[in-house]
Amino acid sequence: MRWSKLFIPTLRENPAEAEVPSHQLLLRAGYIRQLSAGIYNYLLLAQRSIHKIMQITREEMDAIGGQEMYLPALNPAELWQESGRWDVMGDNMFRLKDRFQRDYCLGMTHEEVVTYIARGELRSYKQLPQIWYQIQTKFRDEPRPKSGLLRVRQFIMKDSYSFDIDPAGLDASYQKHFSAYCKTFDRCGLKYTIVEAHSGAMGGSQSHEFMVASEAGEDFIVVNPKGGYAANLEKAVSRPAPPASPDPDGDLSPEEFHTPGQKSIEQVSAFDGFPAASHLKTLVMVADEQPVLALLRGDHQLSETKFAEALGVNHFRPAHPAEIYGWMGAEAGSLGPAGVTNMRIVADKALEGRRNMIAGANKEDYHLRHVTPGEDFQAEFYDLRQVAAGDTDISTGEPLEVIKAIEVGHIFKLGYKYSSAMGLRVLDEHGKEVTPIMGSYGFGMERILCAAIELYHDADGIIMPASIAPFHVVLTPVNSNDAAQREAAEKLYGECRRLGLDALLDDRDERPGVKFKDADLIGIPLRITVGKKLAQGIVELAIRKGRRLLDVPLAEAAAKAKQLLA
Amino acid sequence: MRWSKLFIPTLRENPAEAEVPSHQLLLRAGYIRQLSAGIYNYLLLAQRSIHKIMQITREEMDAIGGQEMYLPALNPAELWQESGRWDVMGDNMFRLKDRFQRDYCLGMTHEEVVTYIARGELRSYKQLPQIWYQIQTKFRDEPRPKSGLLRVRQFIMKDSYSFDIDPAGLDASYQKHFSAYCKTFDRCGLKYTIVEAHSGAMGGSQSHEFMVASEAGEDFIVVNPKGGYAANLEKAVSRPAPPASPDPDGDLSPEEFHTPGQKSIEQVSAFDGFPAASHLKTLVMVADEQPVLALLRGDHQLSETKFAEALGVNHFRPAHPAEIYGWMGAEAGSLGPAGVTNMRIVADKALEGRRNMIAGANKEDYHLRHVTPGEDFQAEFYDLRQVAAGDTDISTGEPLEVIKAIEVGHIFKLGYKYSSAMGLRVLDEHGKEVTPIMGSYGFGMERILCAAIELYHDADGIIMPASIAPFHVVLTPVNSNDAAQREAAEKLYGECRRLGLDALLDDRDERPGVKFKDADLIGIPLRITVGKKLAQGIVELAIRKGRRLLDVPLAEAAAKAKQLLA
Repeated sequence: MRWSKLFIPTLRENPAEAEVPSHQLLLRAGYIRQLSAGIYNYLLLAQRSIHKIMQITREEMDAIGGQEMYLPALNPAELWQESGRWDVMGDNMFRLKDRFQRDYCLGMTHEEVVTYIARGELRSYKQLPQIWYQIQTKFRDEPRPKSGLLRVRQFIMKDSYSFDIDPAGLDASYQKHFSAYCKTFDRCGLKYTIVEAHSGAMGGSQSHEFMVASEAGEDFIVVNPKGGYAANLEKAVSRPAPPASPDPDGDLSPEEFHTPGQKSIEQVSAFDGFPAASHLKTLVMVADEQPVLALLRGDHQLSETKFAEALGVNHFRPAHPAEIYGWMGAEAGSLGPAGVTNMRIVADKALEGRRNMIAGANKEDYHLRHVTPGEDFQAEFYDLRQVAAGDTDISTGEPLEVIKAIEVGHIFKLGYKYSSAMGLRVLDEHGKEVTPIMGSYGFGMERILCAAIELYHDADGIIMPASIAPFHVVLTPVNSNDAAQREAAEKLYGECRRLGLDALLDDRDERPGVKFKDADLIGIPLRITVGKKLAQGIVELAIRKGRRLLDVPLAEAAAKAKQLLA
Repeated sequence: MRWSKLFIPTLRENPAEAEVPSHQLLLRAGYIRQLSAGIYNYLLLAQRSIHKIMQITREEMDAIGGQEMYLPALNPAELWQESGRWDVMGDNMFRLKDRFQRDYCLGMTHEEVVTYIARGELRSYKQLPQIWYQIQTKFRDEPRPKSGLLRVRQFIMKDSYSFDIDPAGLDASYQKHFSAYCKTFDRCGLKYTIVEAHSGAMGGSQSHEFMVASEAGEDFIVVNPKGGYAANLEKAVSRPAPPASPDPDGDLSPEEFHTPGQKSIEQVSAFDGFPAASHLKTLVMVADEQPVLALLRGDHQLSETKFAEALGVNHFRPAHPAEIYGWMGAEAGSLGPAGVTNMRIVADKALEGRRNMIAGANKEDYHLRHVTPGEDFQAEFYDLRQVAAGDTDISTGEPLEVIKAIEVGHIFKLGYKYSSAMGLRVLDEHGKEVTPIMGSYGFGMERILCAAIELYHDADGIIMPASIAPFHVVLTPVNSNDAAQREAAEKLYGECRRLGLDALLDDRDERPGVKFKDADLIGIPLRITVGKKLAQGIVELAIRKGRRLLDVPLAEAAAKAKQLLA
């Protein structure tokens, strides 16, 4: 393509509204423009990169026997009511009515639709396994769209679904996806960590996320930097750092002391001279309409995911001040478990075996010392705690790190949730009706593009991996008025295209500085500059990554470019 | 791909709900399944065909300098309010609110979005011309979805938009599209007629449609079968057949006669013995809230499109009986123009120069003879008439035919409608602000697929053009239990793939009849059957189109298949 004819609206400055690098650079380099909050126009460059990501995706999905389909964005409400997710999805799902006032939604994911198709057509175990995939636009009414294409309301997703006759079959389909995802992300040039993840609203027994470490991410993952353990923070487990000071010995009884105006763990801790870990953190929650007391070590945070999972509840929230006062007879800041009998008490496992801790007295401005779990109060013990930096790996004892990351892919063993709810049944080899077991697997094209930019950029712009760059190479005559340079660039352009490279000819009547800057900004992996050395038959090959420059004979330049890209 | 692993749910019978062949065959051959009214799941085969249509589309759009983008389906209401189409689109547009109660629609077309992008980025004539295109899902709330993928509520469209500095530029962009469309449809194997079309709600000065003649179509086109003239019925002009009997001579005055119970032209005509063409047809319309009398020759039909265009109105309807009585003092069946002074009167040009015709007397059960346009009433003359079979070509006098057709593509010279309404301005070469002129061009992937099936099918199934067939060739061992046949088929499968053919190996454990029937139904252009003649080193090459059979040496079969497909 010839740059002079193209619509690539680059900007000199980072747009004020953009915070993360991928957002800034996608705008500045003319890849995208916003249409509405979380809704973007993908211009030529974004379309070209995304098309390459799609192509890689297709190849890897086809390689595991995936069959491509294309399923509707408009989904009738009845399907989602069958699975129960018409309600569960809440405000996150776009809903609309047609001219006859029938309810529809815009699909966020397609478990319902594929299960509907399978229910209508699959009859026998002989038709299994099946892996169905599509690359299609998804809609999600994000409350806070942000970070450019990282958190949007409309995006292009590869979603796939597996149907197997038994759990061993699901394991195989899951493993195929695991490996196809690794190949896809590898080919897109990403560096990623695979973490154990929480299944959330999707349901199911096992799930992994593919995470790219990045400050632009909105997920947190826990990793052992020496390798081995890696999990989403929501799901991660660890051995907590031991309390900074040992518990007082002895079989002591709770003893009130006055803590005027001291509310937070930090305040009480500074006041009584004991570290936070010697205190009990007491939270009043409302889970499925019932009050629950949740206890943690003073320096620990509640993991909401683990809390919900431990209690088996869907909806929960912190209690309101009036509720707290009504149930506890005291306000937050003086709460503790001793003497509480009117609600369920759950305690984090890090409290098991602790003795003589400090807790609120359920009396304004008073705390208790010498509170011992199992003696001064009874509780159910669960893992309720969010892993924190400084914790250690349960199996190796090595220190763990907590890292921000972008989720680029997620795979789920769904189990029987949808096949069972929607009545998908096939005959097994004995002629008996059985329910197939399902998996669900997804990643977004935009997330891969953004993650690549977050990983690979510098002050001058994007350093796009060649496999997903909108162009492989740009041919740049330094002086557009120099006929020899123009012709040599034109000839090279033809050669590169004949070699199968996506070549861009920068035939604009611009100063060389402008041309170089734009090519750097867009992130074209290679630039071949045709300048003064042309008289000696030499052109310059500039490698965007690492900023290397090579003088190459004109006749060899295209082949050299092809070789460098391979 | 191996058939035994694929999900291709073929049916033995035509589904009862399907009427047109493409609908029946897409269902029967397992290409699609319905999800909701006018909303379909595209299974493996449909996806593969559509993907090939997309690829041809991309190549031809790229060849005319089109730049591919991807624009959002979710469009903010404000954009459509700016162009005025938020109201115009009425119930045909799906509308929804986001969680903050902001209004959005699902894009039916993207003039507003591209004009918005252009307005934000284009500054100078130097950036023109531009051709932007996308292949993207469109939504339209069809009141009566029908005929499978021919009239749907969600479909995949190639839409493109041109921006030029002046009308000569638009002519060039329009011509490029005209030729790209021809190449695309040619490559997809379609036979089509290009007709002059009406611009409708899109606005603009010139427009052509690409029409595939088919009983399954919902459009009517007028063609001169000897070549030359072709137009959409809405837009078509012709020379009407002359009236069957000459007008009575003489300067006669209107004369009432009693026509008890005779209302329709047919009844009056039978009663008075004069042919329909000797009568005036009088229609009372309400156009933009004003009454209008529309007059036609008794055997002619009103073209609503021409009527609206002649009067320059957006909304019109037949008057209600009460309105008619109020304005005319008579009911439909006895209406005529003589003496009418309280409304505008428009008459079809075929009435110019006629004399002494028969019209209603505006008096129950009475008509008038000897009514002469221009003497007994005054009217504005326009072309208001729908062309009918038997009319002749205006330029050659040759007879015209009216044919049912499927619209597969439509191109429009939009003019300044959107650029002007939305304030798109660039500087021309003199530094003066000017408004660019636009074109809009579109075709749907599904329509191409359906039109191909409507054109090419027989009692056994689809005869798909090779360029858009889901597979080029199927390798069919007659007896799956015969190891030699299995191996030969497997080897041929590998060879075909190495030659770049989309090959399908029918490795199912089915009777040969079932395999042959399924391959015929799906419409695979070539089948290589590996059967008993394998012992002599011979396989059979079956050509779906024309049902030819060739015996070919095994070693040459793949190459022969490739040659036949070329």
